Amino acid sequence: MLPLEHLPTLADIRETHGAIAHMIHRTPVLTCQSIDELTGVSLFFKCENFQKIGAFKMRGAASASLRLSDADKQKGLTTHSSGNHAQAVALSAKLLGVAAYIVMPENAPAIKKAGVKSYGGQIITCESTIEARERTLKQVQAETGATFIHPYDDYNVIAGQATAVKELIEDTQGLDIVVSPIGGGGLMSGTALCTKYLNPNIKVFGAEPELVNDAYRSFKSGTFQHNTRIDTIADGLRTNLGDKTFPIIQSHVDDIVTATEEGIISAMRLIWERMKIIIEPSCAVPLAAIIENPAPFQGKKVGVLLTGGNVDLGALPFR
Amino acid sequence: MLPLEHLPTLADIRETHGAIAHMIHRTPVLTCQSIDELTGVSLFFKCENFQKIGAFKMRGAASASLRLSDADKQKGLTTHSSGNHAQAVALSAKLLGVAAYIVMPENAPAIKKAGVKSYGGQIITCESTIEARERTLKQVQAETGATFIHPYDDYNVIAGQATAVKELIEDTQGLDIVVSPIGGGGLMSGTALCTKYLNPNIKVFGAEPELVNDAYRSFKSGTFQHNTRIDTIADGLRTNLGDKTFPIIQSHVDDIVTATEEGIISAMRLIWERMKIIIEPSCAVPLAAIIENPAPFQGKKVGVLLTGGNVDLGALPFR
Repeated sequence: MLPLEHLPTLADIRETHGAIAHMIHRTPVLTCQSIDELTGVSLFFKCENFQKIGAFKMRGAASASLRLSDADKQKGLTTHSSGNHAQAVALSAKLLGVAAYIVMPENAPAIKKAGVKSYGGQIITCESTIEARERTLKQVQAETGATFIHPYDDYNVIAGQATAVKELIEDTQGLDIVVSPIGGGGLMSGTALCTKYLNPNIKVFGAEPELVNDAYRSFKSGTFQHNTRIDTIADGLRTNLGDKTFPIIQSHVDDIVTATEEGIISAMRLIWERMKIIIEPSCAVPLAAIIENPAPFQGKKVGVLLTGGNVDLGALPFR
Repeated sequence: MLPLEHLPTLADIRETHGAIAHMIHRTPVLTCQSIDELTGVSLFFKCENFQKIGAFKMRGAASASLRLSDADKQKGLTTHSSGNHAQAVALSAKLLGVAAYIVMPENAPAIKKAGVKSYGGQIITCESTIEARERTLKQVQAETGATFIHPYDDYNVIAGQATAVKELIEDTQGLDIVVSPIGGGGLMSGTALCTKYLNPNIKVFGAEPELVNDAYRSFKSGTFQHNTRIDTIADGLRTNLGDKTFPIIQSHVDDIVTATEEGIISAMRLIWERMKIIIEPSCAVPLAAIIENPAPFQGKKVGVLLTGGNVDLGALPFR
């Protein structure tokens, strides 16, 4: 595979899916009768919380790293992240047999650092500002020649994330709507592109925390809006859209709905209690948004991307 | 099906499995590479936490209730329980279209009462002593003619619980050992009988909390021993063995291993964090016992019955 310099086509997504198959799990699609009854919606949950490293991010990192030239692969992979993307890049490097240099802020949780180390990633610690992270990343690139794998604003990453909804559509029948959470927009972009390629009759919705709703405001206004606060419990969705993801979302997403913090916690608890699976807060945002904005979803068959299950069990929001 | 007055045979277990199929889920068997690497054991987890009502108890209650005469069914089902068996009897009654009278102690958790009510069960509250529970149950039986479904010491229930390991053995290849937790011994008895019928080369182990180890002491001494304390976090395993379950365990189980309270909490956390599934503390006892008693399990293919996922998210043992 060659690096993508253009919007991924359906052929690109299919090629990506075949290429990364040995680096990912084909995750199950689960249903839950009692949540269907509570919501009045037929829900099909794509369980990326069971994905390698515990989140869909593995798909994008695998796609981007496999597309590097052999010479570039040998110089290793790098990124700055304190979350799931860090682990995805570290595991991709391990599976390719090359080095991973992960720039992490000094206040990153010990469990996230341990995750990166368990996949053999080398951690470079920096101050916890965006400036320090980007400066440190540039130093690492200069010293090692490693390639920066962007967490979302990259067509190679988007093509990888698109494979989750591809599997969801292949493994279900007659979906009316697909809902993905929106952070930087990598998963949302891949989901919207792939869904519209495979079946333009399926509506594509994004879901975002009401508190951190840059994508909602950007989508509604047609101009790039930034987050003014990031204090949502959905820690994977605090990022702004990127230059590549915003146009895709604007042209391929049908609507964006938002969820309150209380709604996110309550939807997360509902999935834990009724489905007996562990999801992280970001991942509860679509169900919360469906419950708080029921009209478009009533009586419909709705696919929901459950994006990850990496959560600090020592600091849960339940009482 | 007729009520069983004898030790369930393989034919009985097969007949039971066919009969209850529409009342239960065939639950998945999951594996986890990182837990395998940590333990040095090839583990196959039978996920009864995904069973209807969130626990294997549905199998035994379905088996016992289906075996009643039509006349007895019409008079309804009854039991006393504050746990998973209460919900299993309530849902079995609902599926048969008959009444369920569930005797619950006045201090039963609200969530357990809500579970019983959600299946249409009628709750009869009593004082929280064994004597009050049994006296109230007798009154209910006298007034309604409902049949008492015992939580474990009943061949019909044992035949139902046996179907979990039947599926586990059918859905895996080459298991060396099967491990089940032991409370009253219903699941352990069904597991041991069915495993030895299907493949006598598979070793059958029981696992019990060290603090509440009546089965361990009974098994080792050959005489009925009772628990002198019940303060384990594994709330499903506080019961003593029964008159029917103890002889089956003595004759069909190869060995019993125990686990400390710390080990149970740590094994529970390991499964939550690595497998992203929710299990209750009782259900972590086999993995904890394997980790604390590694010798018999090293390098072996070991099937583990994950018995349930009903846990109070507001009172978790993690920090």
